[in-house]
Amino acid sequence: MDAPSVIRTKRDRGELTDGQIDWVIDAYTRGEVADEQMSALAMAILLNGMNLREISRWTDAMIRSGVRMDFSALGVPTSDKHSTGGVGDKITLPLAPLVAACGAAVPQLSGRGLGHTGGTLDKLESIPGWRALISNEEMMQTLRDTGAVICAAGDGLAPADKKLYALRDVTGTVEAIPLIASSIMSKKIAEGTGALVLDVKVGSGAFMKNLADAQELARTMVGLGKAAGVNTVALLTDMSTPLGLTAGNALEVRESIEVLAGGGPADVVELTLALAREMLDAAGVQGKDPADALRDGSAMDHWRRMIAAQGGDVDAPLPVAREQHVVTAPASGVLTGLDAYAVGVCAWRLGAGRARKEDPVQAGAGVEMHAKPGDTVVAGQPLLTLHTDTPERYDYAIEALAGGITVAPEGTAFTPNPIVLDRIA
Amino acid sequence: MDAPSVIRTKRDRGELTDGQIDWVIDAYTRGEVADEQMSALAMAILLNGMNLREISRWTDAMIRSGVRMDFSALGVPTSDKHSTGGVGDKITLPLAPLVAACGAAVPQLSGRGLGHTGGTLDKLESIPGWRALISNEEMMQTLRDTGAVICAAGDGLAPADKKLYALRDVTGTVEAIPLIASSIMSKKIAEGTGALVLDVKVGSGAFMKNLADAQELARTMVGLGKAAGVNTVALLTDMSTPLGLTAGNALEVRESIEVLAGGGPADVVELTLALAREMLDAAGVQGKDPADALRDGSAMDHWRRMIAAQGGDVDAPLPVAREQHVVTAPASGVLTGLDAYAVGVCAWRLGAGRARKEDPVQAGAGVEMHAKPGDTVVAGQPLLTLHTDTPERYDYAIEALAGGITVAPEGTAFTPNPIVLDRIA
Repeated sequence: MDAPSVIRTKRDRGELTDGQIDWVIDAYTRGEVADEQMSALAMAILLNGMNLREISRWTDAMIRSGVRMDFSALGVPTSDKHSTGGVGDKITLPLAPLVAACGAAVPQLSGRGLGHTGGTLDKLESIPGWRALISNEEMMQTLRDTGAVICAAGDGLAPADKKLYALRDVTGTVEAIPLIASSIMSKKIAEGTGALVLDVKVGSGAFMKNLADAQELARTMVGLGKAAGVNTVALLTDMSTPLGLTAGNALEVRESIEVLAGGGPADVVELTLALAREMLDAAGVQGKDPADALRDGSAMDHWRRMIAAQGGDVDAPLPVAREQHVVTAPASGVLTGLDAYAVGVCAWRLGAGRARKEDPVQAGAGVEMHAKPGDTVVAGQPLLTLHTDTPERYDYAIEALAGGITVAPEGTAFTPNPIVLDRIA
Repeated sequence: MDAPSVIRTKRDRGELTDGQIDWVIDAYTRGEVADEQMSALAMAILLNGMNLREISRWTDAMIRSGVRMDFSALGVPTSDKHSTGGVGDKITLPLAPLVAACGAAVPQLSGRGLGHTGGTLDKLESIPGWRALISNEEMMQTLRDTGAVICAAGDGLAPADKKLYALRDVTGTVEAIPLIASSIMSKKIAEGTGALVLDVKVGSGAFMKNLADAQELARTMVGLGKAAGVNTVALLTDMSTPLGLTAGNALEVRESIEVLAGGGPADVVELTLALAREMLDAAGVQGKDPADALRDGSAMDHWRRMIAAQGGDVDAPLPVAREQHVVTAPASGVLTGLDAYAVGVCAWRLGAGRARKEDPVQAGAGVEMHAKPGDTVVAGQPLLTLHTDTPERYDYAIEALAGGITVAPEGTAFTPNPIVLDRIA
């Protein structure tokens, strides 16, 4: 077996055999297949595709490149959620303790943000004292004590995916459904959850810009999960405009706590409850309405214990950016567009995100929204508040909003997109 | 400008701008664009193509990555030949001194063999004392003194191509017409020849297996040459069966000397003369028939001086392999097939070629043929003699011949392919 012959098979529109896939993933993990060979193969896969058998074997080979976790000793059903990434997508924060309060354990291995979408770990790190990196033993203990844990994935989980993901990022080979699906699912299957709910984002702020692509990705991932014995379901949800009224690390933690306290923006509450119900269903937990757990304070209680278990000071004030700048409505009428990608890039430029993996993020930076599509606005009223520690970048951040805000004459009929667009099981 | 955005342009079937091409070739030469980025781009080019403007700019950028030689000080027209590579293709050896004897200077920068086709430098190195690596000053002096020089290309010539060629070899991205054409033409244009004749091989023993692909490659290269001010013409020639009666280093030198002495196999003589006439025509040298220069000994005289100028002992006996093995005709009748690829791989396995760039070759190894397609053979008569210093590999070498030799019943009508299939100018 040699790398050029595997590459030529896919280049010439052939199917990779199980043996070729097993060999190339293993040899790449060991460094025998070089980066320049794997990137040529990734481009051939992006342009010529893989069928379901190939994607399934590829995923399996990435899982076998590392360890596979096992939570059966917990004695309770486990359920996890994965979002393909969106702007203002803080849902994991209220969702994990909410589902734990309803009786399923949530082992959530999360990532950091890169590009215009935020990362769950970056958000939680704005809580003074909170640590993302914990040992497997601490993870198990927190799960036992609080029912939920959100932490960084260890190096032992699907190392082939870790290496391949970094390579795809610099070689223009991110946007391939077979590679996206196998990357997400190899990590989630290796993580050892019994049930999995996928939140596949659709719209300007998401990787998948249209519903058909998102459906194909969702179907592929649901198939991979089920084949591996993980009870998997996908919701396709709107990402044409940001979720909730905040995009930025501490800003989103604040909004998540509002939801756990029984308040918060309607779209965030709706999606949190929809995903919670799917997670409980998929795990086989019956007879609990997650809306009750938001009302009666039990979700908040689980949140406080989960954060405290990783050193977070739940009563300390959250960081606030040094400077604020208000963006006003350009005209009076109906706000018909507040583009997710534009707001995401604006928040990123304000300091909420990072350009390179090794960059730090600003805890307080981001965008606060005072209106959402469908709301009536008056010219000159505050529309956004921009938060940053580096006000010298205001102009660059505001530039990102160009064309992203649209106001139609008063009386224009406008119906915002529903949050949940489709369900694939 | 950044590598992922250039890669994405070609991945998404866009045209690369002049600025993108100039930047990516320069940045790759400097090491700013990494191998894994260039290989992903090469795969995208292989699968999505480049138009003539892109190929032309790509070639030009590779030429500008290094020095461009200039032979105008010689005061005589220069003419060179390039073959895309075939089995038994020793034509450069008799051709260069022959054209020099007719009044054009031949500055031939050659390569080594990799894979089943032999390399001109490997063949000449079987002559005791001959050196491939000479300085630019020695090259100019030999050209002045003998009218022809065959030597290794220096590092300064199209370094971007050198780096890219090595990368393509290990990443399954060799077989792309835009990349093959720009690789060949960047070296030949940088070499500074005034006229160029391309011998584009077609058939089982060539890169191009069918005439249509070979025509496209030839048209692309002729266009690139003319655009750069090099008077370029291409002959498409048959490579379904080996050229001449030998494949292997010293074996081919011996056959070349037979041609220079006025003898040699008819196909080698025919192709040598056809290419010589094209080279003289393209250089504007008139009134000389190269057939005369073979008859009157002047071509042989130029050969002896050219070889001696690089240390070669023209009177020393050529190396002979330690062992010989005869392969006999499997049946009586008409030999209808002696497959070029099969014979090429057999010679390579006997030790005439190398698997990796750093491997040595055996000077005496190779295949001697006692019949060619169209000849009548008798079962049991010697058909091939295999030569090697490593007889333990006979079985492996003979395996390569399976299916490569076909004999039809006596009286079967059979017309061998013509040598020259097409001409593109």
